[in-house]
Order: sequence, then structure tokens, then C-alpha cells
Amino acid sequence: ILAGHALAQGPTEAQLAKSEELARWALEQNLGYEIVESLTTEVGARLAGTEAEERARQWAVTKLKKLGFKNVRVEHFDLPVWERGLERAEILAPYPQALVITSLGGSTSTGHQGVEGDVVGFSSLAALKAADADTLKGKIAYIGEVMTRTQDGSGYGVAGAKRREAAYVAKEKGALAVLIRSVGTSSHRFAHTGQMRRVTSQPIPDGVPAAALAAPDADQLERILASGKTVTLHLLLTPETRPAGRSGNVIAEIPGKKKPEEIVLLGAHLDSWDMATGAVDDGAGVGIVVAAAKHLMDETKRPERTVRVVLFGAEEVGLVGGKAYVEMHKDELKNHVIASESDFGAGRIWRFETRAGEGRVAAAQALGHGVRMLGAAPGGNAASGGPDLLFMRGEGVPVVTLKQNGWDYFDLHHTPNDTLDKIHPADLAHNVAAWLSFVYLAANTGEYYR
Amino acid sequence: ILAGHALAQGPTEAQLAKSEELARWALEQNLGYEIVESLTTEVGARLAGTEAEERARQWAVTKLKKLGFKNVRVEHFDLPVWERGLERAEILAPYPQALVITSLGGSTSTGHQGVEGDVVGFSSLAALKAADADTLKGKIAYIGEVMTRTQDGSGYGVAGAKRREAAYVAKEKGALAVLIRSVGTSSHRFAHTGQMRRVTSQPIPDGVPAAALAAPDADQLERILASGKTVTLHLLLTPETRPAGRSGNVIAEIPGKKKPEEIVLLGAHLDSWDMATGAVDDGAGVGIVVAAAKHLMDETKRPERTVRVVLFGAEEVGLVGGKAYVEMHKDELKNHVIASESDFGAGRIWRFETRAGEGRVAAAQALGHGVRMLGAAPGGNAASGGPDLLFMRGEGVPVVTLKQNGWDYFDLHHTPNDTLDKIHPADLAHNVAAWLSFVYLAANTGEYYR
Ligand SMILES: [Zn+2]
Ligand SMILES: [Zn+2]
Ligand SMILES: [Zn+2]
Ligand SMILES: [Zn+2]
Repeated sequence: ILAGHALAQGPTEAQLAKSEELARWALEQNLGYEIVESLTTEVGARLAGTEAEERARQWAVTKLKKLGFKNVRVEHFDLPVWERGLERAEILAPYPQALVITSLGGSTSTGHQGVEGDVVGFSSLAALKAADADTLKGKIAYIGEVMTRTQDGSGYGVAGAKRREAAYVAKEKGALAVLIRSVGTSSHRFAHTGQMRRVTSQPIPDGVPAAALAAPDADQLERILASGKTVTLHLLLTPETRPAGRSGNVIAEIPGKKKPEEIVLLGAHLDSWDMATGAVDDGAGVGIVVAAAKHLMDETKRPERTVRVVLFGAEEVGLVGGKAYVEMHKDELKNHVIASESDFGAGRIWRFETRAGEGRVAAAQALGHGVRMLGAAPGGNAASGGPDLLFMRGEGVPVVTLKQNGWDYFDLHHTPNDTLDKIHPADLAHNVAAWLSFVYLAANTGEYYR
Repeated sequence: ILAGHALAQGPTEAQLAKSEELARWALEQNLGYEIVESLTTEVGARLAGTEAEERARQWAVTKLKKLGFKNVRVEHFDLPVWERGLERAEILAPYPQALVITSLGGSTSTGHQGVEGDVVGFSSLAALKAADADTLKGKIAYIGEVMTRTQDGSGYGVAGAKRREAAYVAKEKGALAVLIRSVGTSSHRFAHTGQMRRVTSQPIPDGVPAAALAAPDADQLERILASGKTVTLHLLLTPETRPAGRSGNVIAEIPGKKKPEEIVLLGAHLDSWDMATGAVDDGAGVGIVVAAAKHLMDETKRPERTVRVVLFGAEEVGLVGGKAYVEMHKDELKNHVIASESDFGAGRIWRFETRAGEGRVAAAQALGHGVRMLGAAPGGNAASGGPDLLFMRGEGVPVVTLKQNGWDYFDLHHTPNDTLDKIHPADLAHNVAAWLSFVYLAANTGEYYR
């Protein structure tokens, strides 16, 4: 129906109906799950800057070409590469026992002898900050603080602060090392890793060696500290950083028919942490956006605008791929009509959020027509769009968020337990259906959202 | 009411009423949980024959004396001690990645270089047995087979066969090593350990090195094998066995007033696997039986019969403590009126089972009066009584089982995830209440059950 006349301003009734029809159809498809299965099985873990992430890019290029995408390419960029090494913690006194820990991304090394010290407990990062300088000389600082389980993931920002800052604050206080209760919501015995300060082109100051305890081990340490006994601990962390590594963003397109220069960007990140196959973070996102774009290609006429899928590299260590994309595509950003990234697991979508210019919110909300039909509520106009879109958003690119239910996401996030079996295929299909209806509308209307 | 006359034959109405009253009262107590908390915090993991198990015995002796038990003592015995060492598995081809594994108890070592071979998959132990001798020369055998989740734990016996036998069968077929899908029911990324053949005084034939894969890693391996590609794997297991170690049973009593020579035995095992603090296996059992006996001591008149608490050592590696007990107490076994062990986690009790002589079943079922009031059904007369009672049972000691709900037990069993937070205090109190009502009746009636 679009063929014979100029691009309509908003979605037509026929387009809205088509977006619903596509969503219903996609609920019965399994392609998204097949893509995650392929990535997590054939590549597995894929830490930023490593040979494994390079294999993930090769996988992506092969897969995207095979699916029929055009202009499939890799845009490389450089970054320092942090690798984990050994990680061990042992209570020496009063009750000798090993604890389950994991190094935080970017942590410095204790050296191969490790460090030994008495533990001083704090209930929060703020409490550690309030300690006098040098009062922790020769000690190991520990920060507790239980993360709040929420549907929208809002507990993460609060809990994440101690992960990002503890090593640097502890250093100011003269500590030997710092331990934190994992930023996560499960009580399974997995420690949650995650980056401290973001990798950037600027050097990061050295913090003390830093690791997270699994929740049951944090409980254990807190019980012993609460008894008033002095806890002496040995900590061994031997991560290493190579200054020069390579990562890259993988890009694929469905070229637009009428306005090929206008871009609707669908993103996900290809890298994962090193301890698991990264099924929910962010294999799911890769499966969702690639399947949605592939269905658009096969089940609809060629879109009016170009649909660009970007699988970002090196998200986990500091949104490095998102930043590189903006630098490499500066001149083109004005043509990015709207963008969104899927990076919050495989839970169903319950809210459609926008970040559009004044007077353009209703037009942007119209893109969520099919998403709302699937059960999502309309959200506000403060969408993040996804982590890798931070810099793009800063350059004025409008974004939407198809907000997933994150109730269980932080049970798995950045642990060895983030594996394929945690994804429910029907939930993943629900996501693909929502994204398909969204991208169909975004790529076939004449609206702008700035 | 018993003081003035001879021991009644069966429980009196007043005793039945008292057993109910005790059970109701105990539901509100927290002592069982406090005991598990103390053991798992202050000792932690306590592998048979190690210094950690020795610390557990010291903990038990101190705790039992402090609680007011009499005749607190340790009965030592010797056994070989197997210790884990390193454990790593890596797929080299077609899709390089690490797998989460754990050595099976009693496994031989691969040597520090490890072994490398192509994987041959089998769907069951029977399928491996059916392979021709020497057809696996230079290969690594893998056995799948998913364990069935059941309330009564009956899936364990079936699934456990491959754990017990795979290493020896694989050796006959010429294999380099054997891997099994973990004997367990969760899909969290923990491999489940467990003993292969029981440690006995007889030497065990050497099997090939043997390890279990976490369920998500078993899925992963099976997916790749199903694709038809050749899977090449590197396996490193470096366990060591010391021929002479020491374990022991810790014994404590409430001496009987009228018939001190007649024994009602309450058991649990003190050792655990090495990877976790052994909260559900079998810290819970320790908490349950010690708390029940302590409540009996404090809340009732001194029992007519002796109540003996036995915390067995070295259960996990082959019921070594249960066997040693029978050898050391041979002459006394005829006076063991009835016995039961708590070793199936911390789930609520749903069935009261007996193993009594002909014509004595109704009398034995009467001991479950208070247990049934708490919601348990009467069970059959084929109770095991608990693993450490195997040899005692063989010598004619009547047993009962206060059967726990094992629905979730094998999610945690023999994994690093068996920690205190997995126990629900109210469920543990339910167990203590049931055991208290049982031991009250068993120690104060004049019935026999042979
Ligand atoms: Zn992510
Ligand atoms: Zn992440
Ligand atoms: Zn046990
Ligand atoms: Zn066990």
C-alpha cells in the first residue's frame, strides 16, 4: 500500500494493523532462540578484546551474510584488554575456610603471593568513604549492602556504585584490597563480576585489588564479623592488562527503498564476560534484534528506510563499541531517525519508553503500537535506549526502550550461570515479536522524533 | 506419670497427647537452625578424613557438652583420604570453550598434563556397558541421562548408578577418561560431586579419571555432539589419595532412667563434601537430631531409655562411620531398640516409614503419632532409616524414616551451592518438632520392634 504514494507522516491504519499481524505471527517463530543457541554454543564466552570476541565477530559476519543482510562489515577499534587470572580468598582465622569470589573487571593484581590482612566491614560505599584516610592501612575493606530486586532494574544503579568505586576509595584509605557483596540478586553461590571504572582512552588511576563475594559467602563473612571476632583473610587475584587489543562493531543492513540514507538502528552487544556463554547478557539481545530484522526482511516489503543492525563490541568493559560507533559515524548521526538496543536479558517486554523531542513524543509512542498489543504499557520520555546508545543519545539521536522484565536478570548477570538454559524460548519470541512490530513501523513511516 | 509404675507397653493416651504438645511447642523454636548455622559458619566444609573434619568433631564435642549431653566422646577409625586437586575441562574443537566440571570422589588423576581425546557420547551407563571392549581406546566417554526430580528421592538411585560405575566400565572399554552429566536436578551451573565406589578396607580397582559436568555444560556438550561434529576435549584432574587418614563418630547421650541399656539412636552425619559448607547435606540433619534430643532433655522428664545421638564421620565416601559403629558396638546392637538418621536436607516431613518385625509394624507406626499430626502420612515397612544405618539394619536393628520432601534436595546436593541460606528456618523447626515427638515416644514406651 505504500508503493504508489509518498511516505505517510505517521503509521497508517493499515500499517498499525500490519504491525499487529507481524507481532502475532512472530510469537510462533523460534529464530531468535536459534541465533542465541548458535552464538552461545559455537562461540561461548567472548570477553572484549580477546580472540574469543574475534571469533564472535566472525560468527556474526557469517551468520548475518547467510541470513541475507547487506553491507555486512566489521568496524574495528583498539582497547586495553584485562584478563582474569587466578582468584582465591580464604579466611585464615577465626574459622578457616575458602570463599567464592571473582575479580572485578579492571582490578589490579595482588601479586602471586596474594595479600593477607584483617577485614574491616562497612555497610555501604558511603560508610567506606566516611572512614578517615589511612585508617585502613594493612587491612582489607569489605562492603556489604544487599541489592534490591526490581522489575525495572533500578536496584542496579544503586548497588553498582560500590562495584565501580570501591577500589579507588579503598586505596585512598590505605587498604590492601577491597571485597564487596556481589552486585546481584540471587543467593546461588556465584560471584558477580563487572567493570569498575570504564575503559577509556584516558588512563584510569590504580585502585587496590578488588573482588566480589558470592551472596552466601558475603552472608558468611558478615556473620563472623557480627560475632565481633577478628577475621583474617588471604586474597589472591592475578589479573593482567595488555595495553593493546582489538575489538569491533559488526554492522549489517537492510537498505531502505525510498530513503536509504535514513537509518533505524537496532543494537545489541556481542561481547560477554568471560565466565559464561553470555546467554542473557547479551546473547538474547543479539537473537532478538537479528531475528526481528530478518523477519522484517522476509515477511514485509523492503522497508522505506534503512534498517541497520549493530552488534557492539566491548560493551562490558565500558561501552567502548558504542563510543567508537559515534566517532566513526559522526557525520551520519543526523540521519539516525531512531535507535534502540536490546540488553536486559530475555524477559518479556512490559513497557515502551521513548526519548523524543518536544512535541514528538506521541509520534514516537505510536511506534509501540504492536508492543502495547503484546501487553506493554506506555512509558515516559526518559528512555535510555540501551547502554551502547549513551553517546549517540548525547548527540541527539532519538531512542526508545522496549523495557524487559528484569526481575530475574540480576540472578544471572555477570556470573558463570548465564547460560542458554536460562532463556525461555516463548519469552524470547515475545521479544522478537515486539521488536518486529516496532521496526516495521519505524522503517516505514515518514515521522521524525527529534 | 510414668514414675510410679512399670513401663507401659505402648504409648499411653497421656504420652500421645504429650508428643503432640511437644511437637507444637517445638515448631516455635529455632535451636535446630542455630546449630546448623554454628556448624556451617564455624567449621565450613568438612571432608572425610581431613583436618576440617577433625575440627568438626571438636566443634561437636564442645557443642554437645555445652548443651548438657552425657558421655560425649569420639570413636575414631582410619580410612584413606581422597583430595580433589585441580579440575578443568576444555573443548579444543570444534568450538573452543571451558566447561564446568568436578572430579568424582575416588577418581584417579589424569596427571598434571591432563589427557586429550575425542568424545564418544552414550545415553546411559547401560549403553556404555554395551560397547565392545577396547572400542574407546584413546577416547573420552561421556554419559548423559537426565535425573528425574521426585519428592521421595527415588530418582537418585537410578541416576547414581552411572556415577558409581562409569569409571570402571570406561576402563574396561579402553577409554582415557569418563565424563557424566551431573547426578542432580538443577540447571544452575554447578557440577555435582559424589563418591564412586565406596571406600572400604578392600582395595578398589582403579578406574579411569572421572568427572561430572554441570547441567548447562552437559547440554552444551550434547548439543555439539548432536551436530555430528567431532568434539576434542582436554581434561585435567589431579586428585590424590593418602592411604592413612582418621575420621570418627561423635557420640552423646541422655542416659535412660529405667532402662539405661536400651538405646534409641538418633543419627546424622558430620562430614560433608569439600566444596560447600554442607548445610543441607548434612548440617541440617545434625541440627535436627541434636535439637530434638536437647529439647527432650529440657522439656520432659528424664527418658526411660537411653537416647544416643550419633554424628557419623565419613558418610560421604562410603558410610565408613556407619560401618565402624557397628563393628565397635556389635555386642550392644541387640539393645538398640530403634534407630533413625536424618540425612535428606531440610524439607518438611511428609511420611513416617518403619522397618519393624512381623507383627510389630503397628507398634512402630505408633511412634509416628506426633509426626502424622504435623502432616505426614503413614508409610510402608521398608524404611531405610538413613544411609549410615545400612549395616545396623543388616544386624537386625529396627529403623524408622521421617521422610523429608526431597523435591529441591538434588538441586543443591554435593555442589558448592549447599550453603546455609538454602535452609528455611520454619522447615527446619518442623523437622525438629517431628523428631522430638518421635524420640519422646520411642524413649518412654516399653515396646520392642524386632
Ligand atoms: Zn549487557
Ligand atoms: Zn553486562
Ligand atoms: Zn548426606
Ligand atoms: Zn551426601
